[in-house]
Amino acid sequence: MKKLTMMALAGAMISFTASAQDSAVTDDMIEHANMLGQNALKSSLTEDIITSLTTEVGHRLAGTANDKKGREWAMAKMLAMGYDRVWEEPVTIPLWHRGSASVRITAPYQQNMAIVALGNSVRTPEGGLTAEVAQFDEYKDLVAAAPNSLNGKIAYVSLRMDGSGLKGYGYAGQARRNGSVAAAKAGASAIIIRSIGSDDNRTPHTGSMNYAEGVTQIPAAAISNPDADLLDNMLKYGEPVTIELNMTSHSHDPVVTYNVLGEITGTEEPEKAVMIGAHLDSWDLATGALDDGTGVSIMMSAGKHIIDGGIKPKRSIRVMLFAAEEEGLYGAHEYVRAHKEDHNDFGNTILGAEWDSGTGRIINIAPGVGPTSLNVVREMGAVFAPYGVSTLMTNTAKGQSDMSALGNAGMPAVNFGMEPTNYFDFHHTPNDTLDKVDMPAITHNAAIYAMFAWMAATVDVDYQK
Amino acid sequence: MKKLTMMALAGAMISFTASAQDSAVTDDMIEHANMLGQNALKSSLTEDIITSLTTEVGHRLAGTANDKKGREWAMAKMLAMGYDRVWEEPVTIPLWHRGSASVRITAPYQQNMAIVALGNSVRTPEGGLTAEVAQFDEYKDLVAAAPNSLNGKIAYVSLRMDGSGLKGYGYAGQARRNGSVAAAKAGASAIIIRSIGSDDNRTPHTGSMNYAEGVTQIPAAAISNPDADLLDNMLKYGEPVTIELNMTSHSHDPVVTYNVLGEITGTEEPEKAVMIGAHLDSWDLATGALDDGTGVSIMMSAGKHIIDGGIKPKRSIRVMLFAAEEEGLYGAHEYVRAHKEDHNDFGNTILGAEWDSGTGRIINIAPGVGPTSLNVVREMGAVFAPYGVSTLMTNTAKGQSDMSALGNAGMPAVNFGMEPTNYFDFHHTPNDTLDKVDMPAITHNAAIYAMFAWMAATVDVDYQK
Repeated sequence: MKKLTMMALAGAMISFTASAQDSAVTDDMIEHANMLGQNALKSSLTEDIITSLTTEVGHRLAGTANDKKGREWAMAKMLAMGYDRVWEEPVTIPLWHRGSASVRITAPYQQNMAIVALGNSVRTPEGGLTAEVAQFDEYKDLVAAAPNSLNGKIAYVSLRMDGSGLKGYGYAGQARRNGSVAAAKAGASAIIIRSIGSDDNRTPHTGSMNYAEGVTQIPAAAISNPDADLLDNMLKYGEPVTIELNMTSHSHDPVVTYNVLGEITGTEEPEKAVMIGAHLDSWDLATGALDDGTGVSIMMSAGKHIIDGGIKPKRSIRVMLFAAEEEGLYGAHEYVRAHKEDHNDFGNTILGAEWDSGTGRIINIAPGVGPTSLNVVREMGAVFAPYGVSTLMTNTAKGQSDMSALGNAGMPAVNFGMEPTNYFDFHHTPNDTLDKVDMPAITHNAAIYAMFAWMAATVDVDYQK
Repeated sequence: MKKLTMMALAGAMISFTASAQDSAVTDDMIEHANMLGQNALKSSLTEDIITSLTTEVGHRLAGTANDKKGREWAMAKMLAMGYDRVWEEPVTIPLWHRGSASVRITAPYQQNMAIVALGNSVRTPEGGLTAEVAQFDEYKDLVAAAPNSLNGKIAYVSLRMDGSGLKGYGYAGQARRNGSVAAAKAGASAIIIRSIGSDDNRTPHTGSMNYAEGVTQIPAAAISNPDADLLDNMLKYGEPVTIELNMTSHSHDPVVTYNVLGEITGTEEPEKAVMIGAHLDSWDLATGALDDGTGVSIMMSAGKHIIDGGIKPKRSIRVMLFAAEEEGLYGAHEYVRAHKEDHNDFGNTILGAEWDSGTGRIINIAPGVGPTSLNVVREMGAVFAPYGVSTLMTNTAKGQSDMSALGNAGMPAVNFGMEPTNYFDFHHTPNDTLDKVDMPAITHNAAIYAMFAWMAATVDVDYQK
């Protein structure tokens, strides 16, 4: 396979030489980018970094001691790798403590279920909460529940996420994000949901949830898919089902954490930078290998490959490790605020791309830039063709995950798309561990990001235009 | 598919009619057996029973209140189904309490791991046990450890079970069954093992373990495969790894539980019986759907199909739900002892077959009977051919799981073999739940067991001869 790839690349490089004469992406740039890509593909660095992160740091719940360990680890690594500049930028975030969570069906048949608190949830009253379950097929049915109709009950949303993709995740995820508000409006004393996940493991999925101004804050938790099946089966028998819920999760006063940045300083316009990013924080149930250890290792290793390539980009390349993505893109929103208001230099972040998609191999690139520069991004995209990466003919990308906060604030962006994976089997669960990572895939992705970042920072173009 | 199966069956029945003139298994018997099989395949009973068991009872750890619930459930069900006789036979068993188990890597990097106590394990001292990890690639290396070489250390066996079959399970399982003895002989204060399982979930696998006379009893536990990977990676970095282990598992005085039996009484020799069995007990981490809820539901529904078939067998059919298989075939051994010594009627259990293999579809039958009766078993086997079940040409079966205790004591037996499954992904874990059960497969298996039991109890043959 390796031989074939190399031959395909050689062929592509030759044909590109012929057609790239009048291009902004020059032959020399393409040659260097391919060298970066080839060296990246031969390297074990991306694998080494994610192994180090998950082994030496573990989870990185925002604001905790482990979050700090993660930041120290990242800064030390990037300094050792030879980044020109490594620094932190402060972000104030809510601090949430998971505590313990347990749930037991008490009638008509006693059974324990596997449960996790949703991020941001309040605790149950001292001694727990015992109440009858009121089942809803999905979020919209819960929203339609009349005021006081759930008094003294625990709401339960049983919808199973459809398929394994983002669409099903987004739809079912409404119950996680906003179910507590809907349930509280109808008088419920707590809400439990079927995990938003595509697996059948008794490893329930956490994730962030919201409260609303003026609506009682009630405890919110997720049971695993097999436990939801059990509860559904028991409810089908027709007798009232009562559960006892015990949670000690709670929020503390806000704390300061930090976005971590590493820079390869540009030779001609160092104040301008292409940003490649991922989020350093994770949930606390596992080592955050897929979410977003892969992104962290891809970005850090991509930068190192560029450093080792020996030719500095004309503008800077910033590896951005965002803080507190899981709690709601806190690091990204603060970056936009600070660089608009405090530093007045937000426009210097000229183009951004994130990886927060787990372990899938990149198969396409989708631009979101100005109409004139679009062609230049497509020229870059063509360089990836021999690597199995096609360029989408749209121009609507706004940045993924954290980067969407920057994209929505006006930064041009590129989204990398990937092959389908079983990401939502493991997302936000105790199963988000190193063994789930496809090392050749993330090595491939690091090669693409290295080539992309170097070309994007070097080519002479204004992505706003 | 259903139509095709029916046509294939019709063809097979016709061809068998021609060839079965001089057989012990008569045309009438074959016709009735096929009727039983067809009715079983159309029925949802096997599915209903396992749904009821897992929903209404849950786990059935031997000697616990849930074990009692399971027995009451089984007796009530079988009485309601119209079994002629339903009763219990006492079995004295050890009573073990799982308590809690936790483990934390304390140096060089702090991480929590997912762990479960092995069945029968003693607890750690008050306040837990903190010690350096001494890694062994596999059980035989631990056995070779010199006396006192592990003083003040916790032994760790890192071998991953090879493949997903019984052979890999048996080999790797030595560390679970006997590792504590080997570790204690070398002076270790505890042993942890990589889970004996084929999955990559953070749902560690429990299972029984042994102590030996005169050897110090040390705590024994299993970490999940992803956690073992993490520990292996940390050990590879070369620094000493220290863990803190906390377990409160402990044994109580022996208690009495019961084998549960349901009988369809034979018309001619009611004291003689064909036994079809499964074990009613389970581990306590899940609902014991695969291990051995499937066997329980297959046997109970097979009996009910025979009852509904309207023709009583000549000899009795006993559905045997064994007690305390997980702790070491206690119910089976006691059955042998009691029926040899107390009742002097062990020889009346003329043939036995068990299902303790999860959710795989039966694809073959392996006899273990006398040389003269072998041909009769093969005649029965031929009846299963249109159902995709072949007859193996061996004659060495001794009975599976509990039934092997009876087989080793001299009872003729039949083993049913199955298609490969991912049984060892879920075996002895919190993931052994109803969603893992292939309902069409266990319905198929119930049809085979119904046909088998009825023919085996009706045909005129002595399986000892």
